[in-house]
Amino acid sequence: MKNQLPKGYVQKDDALWLVDEESLGFHGSWKVNRLLHHEQTPFQEITVFENDALGRVLALDGIPQTSAKDGFIYNEMITHIPLTTHPKPARVAIIGGGDGGAAREAVKYPGVEEVTLVEIDQRVVELSAQWLPEVFGETMDPRIRPAYRDGNEWIREQEGTYDCIIVDSSDPVGPAQVLFEQSFYAQVYRALKDDGLMACQSESPFFHAHVLQKVVRQLRQLFPIVRTYLATIPTYPGGCWSFTLASKKWDPLTADLSRLQAHDTQYVNADVFLAAFQLPNYIRRLLAE
Amino acid sequence: MKNQLPKGYVQKDDALWLVDEESLGFHGSWKVNRLLHHEQTPFQEITVFENDALGRVLALDGIPQTSAKDGFIYNEMITHIPLTTHPKPARVAIIGGGDGGAAREAVKYPGVEEVTLVEIDQRVVELSAQWLPEVFGETMDPRIRPAYRDGNEWIREQEGTYDCIIVDSSDPVGPAQVLFEQSFYAQVYRALKDDGLMACQSESPFFHAHVLQKVVRQLRQLFPIVRTYLATIPTYPGGCWSFTLASKKWDPLTADLSRLQAHDTQYVNADVFLAAFQLPNYIRRLLAE
Repeated sequence: MKNQLPKGYVQKDDALWLVDEESLGFHGSWKVNRLLHHEQTPFQEITVFENDALGRVLALDGIPQTSAKDGFIYNEMITHIPLTTHPKPARVAIIGGGDGGAAREAVKYPGVEEVTLVEIDQRVVELSAQWLPEVFGETMDPRIRPAYRDGNEWIREQEGTYDCIIVDSSDPVGPAQVLFEQSFYAQVYRALKDDGLMACQSESPFFHAHVLQKVVRQLRQLFPIVRTYLATIPTYPGGCWSFTLASKKWDPLTADLSRLQAHDTQYVNADVFLAAFQLPNYIRRLLAE
Repeated sequence: MKNQLPKGYVQKDDALWLVDEESLGFHGSWKVNRLLHHEQTPFQEITVFENDALGRVLALDGIPQTSAKDGFIYNEMITHIPLTTHPKPARVAIIGGGDGGAAREAVKYPGVEEVTLVEIDQRVVELSAQWLPEVFGETMDPRIRPAYRDGNEWIREQEGTYDCIIVDSSDPVGPAQVLFEQSFYAQVYRALKDDGLMACQSESPFFHAHVLQKVVRQLRQLFPIVRTYLATIPTYPGGCWSFTLASKKWDPLTADLSRLQAHDTQYVNADVFLAAFQLPNYIRRLLAE
């Protein structure tokens, strides 16, 4: 009897492929040179595979999340923008982010005392440590404290204690769906100090324009400063990816860029920091609606 | 007997898909709601199909080239950057660009007297006019003069006559291969006036890094000012796409941005113009080598 393939994996001719079917009318297929790991956790199906373009790739429920070759783009952009914008981030929380990449960038900031990594699925952290050192790092900095909790439950216990909260979620299907809801953002607002700020990934402006619009509308109801910024991430469909920063006080457009810890980054630098906020007209119009 | 499908088209389950297999380890598949046109010309196989995300798509030899929904990104970025950088572009040539989109943007510039559209395949122009009015426009401006010629032959007949030359080629395989060679760029240099400039598409910095590197190295041997800029184009694999401007005199970084004709653009604006030149570190390093 044939072994069952993990979700999203298909055999075509002589090769195995992972097919990302999330986007309307478009499938991205990644050739699987070797399937390195496959496991069903209580939360999701985790796979790790080797690809020519991306190196090792971590996928959750058949959707590629991060890779050895381009993971730096997402992790640098979701972390350095908020941590540079806040002039003195000491207490940081990351909700999701089990690949460890965002936490690793966060501890580069002087003054950061503690990074709480609120990941629902401990196995994502363990497998990232095992298979993706390019993203996770060789070891976990002692200031990073994993809390294997549901982010939506954990956030309700916090009040006025965080400088920066990074919502590093997967797509708004499955366990991450609640992390795109207004009730969650209201709890994030409450968990932040009076001058705190948050950043989240807000999906593709091209393929998931309605998600980005909804995120921005919801955040504008809570925060006085809401700014969307972009990066191009080959792993994700269409490549065009958005992040949104929402802040009680500090504005990224007037941030002190000498704070940017970009001496060993592969994507972000001071010019890219500002350029990322310059939105093409079709995205400006999307967010003006 | 089953009709043969055009190159790149495959039947999967109940649907027809166009599979772009150009990138190592990655295939982008676009669902074909309807195959609207299919024809073999002396130069290539042209197809037009309807897709949920992109609307109508023009493909050459099975590679998507432009679409109703995102064609504006490529055409605005390959045209407005050089035409704003040159303070007084009167004579413009476009090599390739049979979809008419770049020519349509070029005639928005005051002072442009003539746009020579050097497209090897007349059928690309005719089919774009028929099927892709979102890209081509409703009619062709009388200042646009098609020359159905091989760009590499045509350029040898020009000397010191053009202000701007736009190399709007397909990928460096098939008919467009010569348009990525040093001998071609030397002819472009010769065809330009003493203060002329050129812009070309220079492929994906992620999937085709060696092509971008080669283009930039070759242009640096000819032109004193060579600058690569980026746009994110969902139609192309990985989304991250590069263009390179090479100039005898005018520098885009000090261009008079009040010249930018962006009143009805969907992508470019003055902020995006400058932001496009701010390269992520991994691309900076690629071009420093």
